Amino acid sequence: MQTMTMDKPKAPKASPAPRNGVDTPTLLATINAVGAQPELAKFQFRAQSRWISGTHSRSTVSGFFGAGGEHSHKKAFDYDSDHPAVLCGADHGPTPVEHLLHALAGCLTAGIGNIAAVRGITLHEVVSTVEGDIDLQGILGLSEEVRNGYQGIRISFRISGDAPAEKLRELVEQSRRRSAVFDVLTNGVPVTLEVAA
Amino acid sequence: MQTMTMDKPKAPKASPAPRNGVDTPTLLATINAVGAQPELAKFQFRAQSRWISGTHSRSTVSGFFGAGGEHSHKKAFDYDSDHPAVLCGADHGPTPVEHLLHALAGCLTAGIGNIAAVRGITLHEVVSTVEGDIDLQGILGLSEEVRNGYQGIRISFRISGDAPAEKLRELVEQSRRRSAVFDVLTNGVPVTLEVAA
Repeated sequence: MQTMTMDKPKAPKASPAPRNGVDTPTLLATINAVGAQPELAKFQFRAQSRWISGTHSRSTVSGFFGAGGEHSHKKAFDYDSDHPAVLCGADHGPTPVEHLLHALAGCLTAGIGNIAAVRGITLHEVVSTVEGDIDLQGILGLSEEVRNGYQGIRISFRISGDAPAEKLRELVEQSRRRSAVFDVLTNGVPVTLEVAA
Repeated sequence: MQTMTMDKPKAPKASPAPRNGVDTPTLLATINAVGAQPELAKFQFRAQSRWISGTHSRSTVSGFFGAGGEHSHKKAFDYDSDHPAVLCGADHGPTPVEHLLHALAGCLTAGIGNIAAVRGITLHEVVSTVEGDIDLQGILGLSEEVRNGYQGIRISFRISGDAPAEKLRELVEQSRRRSAVFDVLTNGVPVTLEVAA
């Protein structure tokens, strides 16, 4: 990501001043620190989940490992998941597949904020809509030809800021290239499952 | 999913009585209705997202299409995503990759609730822990050999109920076989991205 280095500052656009709510100097210093000490880059994120009733469960996200040590979020974040009434659930939360969609939007949007700051672009607005198409014949066991998960996901961004449209589009493209969620969703990831019963 | 059909009821264990908070008769009737009219199985889930500041964004999940028409959740669900302080964020919410982890737990747990009800097993407890390992040299642009996303995810279940351990483990395994999120995370999904700037 040579665009994130400070090799060729082009004042004023490439100035690493704080921008968009991003402490750009600290962000760049962090990247340099990890570059010098790659073991700092190893992170482990976690969630705990508990079944409540029917298809309703609640997850908690609180601690994680990274940058050589244990961390806690400022507070524990709790999330409910459920199925809606039309799928015989009690609708106490979104379906788990809806949680996937906002994770994708959140990841790409965070990247846009950081990359714009490093590139000296002030953002005015970034909004997105994510849609996922799924044929429930898979999870309902009605067809062996239909996959369980989404058949496709589309995300549409509207972005405005103090740069030409082409530069704004490049922010989204660079964020896509460096998005952890986009990578996992498009390329898959090994998942191992253990059960104590 | 022949285990979900009513072809061979074995009273009392296979009784389709409501159980675990699942309205089992309605669930089975729904599956039968979709089997008779497969177009009812086509769903589209959605999320809208708006950048707030830095790496902080907020998503809303409210409406979806399915079973032949538009639906709204009982309420709109809002979720914040951010980066933690150690990654130069303001920690207003979990990272997007943490949202992925609880989505996985929520999907597998919902399936366990439904499948146990259909199999006549009363659940006492289902808890899980999800861990995802990620090397941030990918997203920080420090290495072209390191992927952006998780290198691996592990989910560990503890489950108890009124059935032998082997039957309880089979619930988890059947849920994995029919999980939309497990499918998407392990096999990937095509994601298309559009930008209006």
